[in-house]
Amino acid sequence: MAVRRQRPHPLGLPGTFGSEIDKGGRPGGFDRWLVRRIAAKAGNPDVAFALWDGEDAYRPSGECAGRIVFRDRGALLSVIFGPEVGFGDAFSAGRIEVEGDLVDVLARCYRCMDSGRSAAGKRSAFGRLPKPRSNTTAGSRRHIQHHYDLGNDFYRLWLDKEMVYTCAYYPTPGATLEQAQRAKMDHVCRKLMLRPDQQVIEAGCGWGSLALYMAREYGVRVRAFNISREQIAYARERASREGVGDRVEFVQDDYRNIEGACDAFVSVGMLEHVGVRNYESLGAVIARTLKPAGLALVHSVGRNRPTPVNAWLEQRIFPGSYPPSLREMMAIFEPFNFSIIDVENLRLHYARTLREWLTRFDHAEATVRSMYDAEFIRAWRLYLAGCSAAFLANSIQLFQVVCAPSANNDVPWTRTHVYPRAAESADG
Amino acid sequence: MAVRRQRPHPLGLPGTFGSEIDKGGRPGGFDRWLVRRIAAKAGNPDVAFALWDGEDAYRPSGECAGRIVFRDRGALLSVIFGPEVGFGDAFSAGRIEVEGDLVDVLARCYRCMDSGRSAAGKRSAFGRLPKPRSNTTAGSRRHIQHHYDLGNDFYRLWLDKEMVYTCAYYPTPGATLEQAQRAKMDHVCRKLMLRPDQQVIEAGCGWGSLALYMAREYGVRVRAFNISREQIAYARERASREGVGDRVEFVQDDYRNIEGACDAFVSVGMLEHVGVRNYESLGAVIARTLKPAGLALVHSVGRNRPTPVNAWLEQRIFPGSYPPSLREMMAIFEPFNFSIIDVENLRLHYARTLREWLTRFDHAEATVRSMYDAEFIRAWRLYLAGCSAAFLANSIQLFQVVCAPSANNDVPWTRTHVYPRAAESADG
Repeated sequence: MAVRRQRPHPLGLPGTFGSEIDKGGRPGGFDRWLVRRIAAKAGNPDVAFALWDGEDAYRPSGECAGRIVFRDRGALLSVIFGPEVGFGDAFSAGRIEVEGDLVDVLARCYRCMDSGRSAAGKRSAFGRLPKPRSNTTAGSRRHIQHHYDLGNDFYRLWLDKEMVYTCAYYPTPGATLEQAQRAKMDHVCRKLMLRPDQQVIEAGCGWGSLALYMAREYGVRVRAFNISREQIAYARERASREGVGDRVEFVQDDYRNIEGACDAFVSVGMLEHVGVRNYESLGAVIARTLKPAGLALVHSVGRNRPTPVNAWLEQRIFPGSYPPSLREMMAIFEPFNFSIIDVENLRLHYARTLREWLTRFDHAEATVRSMYDAEFIRAWRLYLAGCSAAFLANSIQLFQVVCAPSANNDVPWTRTHVYPRAAESADG
Repeated sequence: MAVRRQRPHPLGLPGTFGSEIDKGGRPGGFDRWLVRRIAAKAGNPDVAFALWDGEDAYRPSGECAGRIVFRDRGALLSVIFGPEVGFGDAFSAGRIEVEGDLVDVLARCYRCMDSGRSAAGKRSAFGRLPKPRSNTTAGSRRHIQHHYDLGNDFYRLWLDKEMVYTCAYYPTPGATLEQAQRAKMDHVCRKLMLRPDQQVIEAGCGWGSLALYMAREYGVRVRAFNISREQIAYARERASREGVGDRVEFVQDDYRNIEGACDAFVSVGMLEHVGVRNYESLGAVIARTLKPAGLALVHSVGRNRPTPVNAWLEQRIFPGSYPPSLREMMAIFEPFNFSIIDVENLRLHYARTLREWLTRFDHAEATVRSMYDAEFIRAWRLYLAGCSAAFLANSIQLFQVVCAPSANNDVPWTRTHVYPRAAESADG
């Protein structure tokens, strides 16, 4: 596969692993045995596995929803030796191809792999995976810039108009991504019960969409933190363009350095990059900034139980990332006596959000090709499709957690304020 | 204080602790020093502490919301040597009296005590407390019968008409206890998305009100478990009287013995008696009975962080009880890969429910006095008022947790089904 690079490769993909192995030789009995072994380790999903001669080496007994094709022996071996990184890198290099709907095929595999795992929560399919790297202040900066500084022009191609790069909220099946991202921001604001002139602190503000939404729609003042250069620059430009520069301050700094006081603390999609070891630090930041009558909301990808992060995703897409179980998340709140008042799981919303991003990414492929090479494009498709599939397969969750300081007795009695016009809020 | 016992004392109150100590002697400087020490350990709350000469030995610097009076030196020493059991037993014996609103005075003390505790979650006020006893199958039966078999006639005096002995749900401030208990049952049914002819398993069914409500209002079939003799007898009688005996089966058995299959699993107010060591057993019961497309709801008193149970409450009122933190509750769900889809905290609802029970208990005092002695009545008042105060002071929480098996992709996308007529559901 011709690899033409417009920029130094942004994901650090190796691209050539296994290329020294003879690819032209006809697959033999051992190759077919290896494929069946991979299929068995993946729980014998209802997709076929084929080799470079085009023939299926594994076919499901019933329905067959798609086909995974190994284009050479090196690709096969790389999956055997390191299934997640091997599969991801070989797919990115075009040495593994997937026929059928990519999200659907992956979801079927993940579902089988998950159900094959033991009840004790251990990953039995392919052995143990390395722990994610730690997120020191410097490490976090490096990790975040690896992903979020790929360029605003790139993200603009396939995100919604507001540039919201977190799980949307679809109030009705017919909502567009644009409507669903606005609905998500409103959902967050309602849960936080924002009132005009309140002070809000946001940790991890992306391109500033939520901060600007809160200021514009709820009349609050916001200090929003992010360590991504490009995102902060974009957000500042946007605040002044939209005339809310006096109400929204974008600060390029680490969440650990947040000081000041606020009525509401919000963090949407940052916790995945914090690392369990730093949860108590995040809790300390909330505890020292949130007023006694305040509310905090933390929104994060999560797990049903502690599970190693997908190694390819951690190495190529989100270095240092780790989605916690709800139990692990409690390390933020318990040491500071916060009361958990609401947890909502938006798993299926993120499956759909990612599917929508993938569709838009595919539509923009010609433009992306002028910016990045084919390997990058395939890697990015795998990331978007793979995460959508993982949400569909229930391998990952999306937790929105609202908490209050122990001293807050003005917490809402019911959640009707979140659903003010439940019956007709649909097309909002 | 004259103690007249109509029945053998149901709570096992000692009644005579410290009676050998000279009570008549005028309090001296050492007594007053002890009182000030107790006040300081309790965080110097805004209530006065007085001795048996009627004089205040401690007065708050600002507002004074009530007064705690030690009637003799023994009462004072018992609080010093074992603050929770000492206070509870001395209050029950009439040797400590509280002037002012009992709930309010206790809530002020709890609030100060909590805020004086260290961030690490350790109880610093009065040292470490013993671990609650374990709940083997036989132990559970003994512990449950201690409390719930006090007699249906007794509970009928101060519970709502449906005999619901768990936290109510007040959809509006004006709702009565009767309305709020029905609203709670409906809230639970909506969260479980019950449909006609579904099979429901209920673990810990009290007097059967929820099981009967689900069958009557949602047309489901219910198998409801409880180890309290008296409650099961009452529930069975009621099912046949209400003509739903064919749809609701009440089983006198331990939750660990539950078999069969269900579309919904519900447990309201049982987990407090299960004990953390048995959470995985409870999870295993849910995992083996709940169908892949099912939902489960566990409703329990909880904590912001692991905290020893009030020793008096555990010894006199609820042997073997322990309210878990949300993190601890996850030991039910994580080992079986359940997805947590919703957590709601109804803390303030339980504060109000308990206050309402106390009011009704006080109104029924003449009748209770014909059944139990004064010591029992005082103990029961302390239990109801103390728990209401603890919810008000944020010392305890009420978690309603909904989970789904990992294979369930038909989980609700939003929670609007819980709030179908959010705006006007108020007086329902």
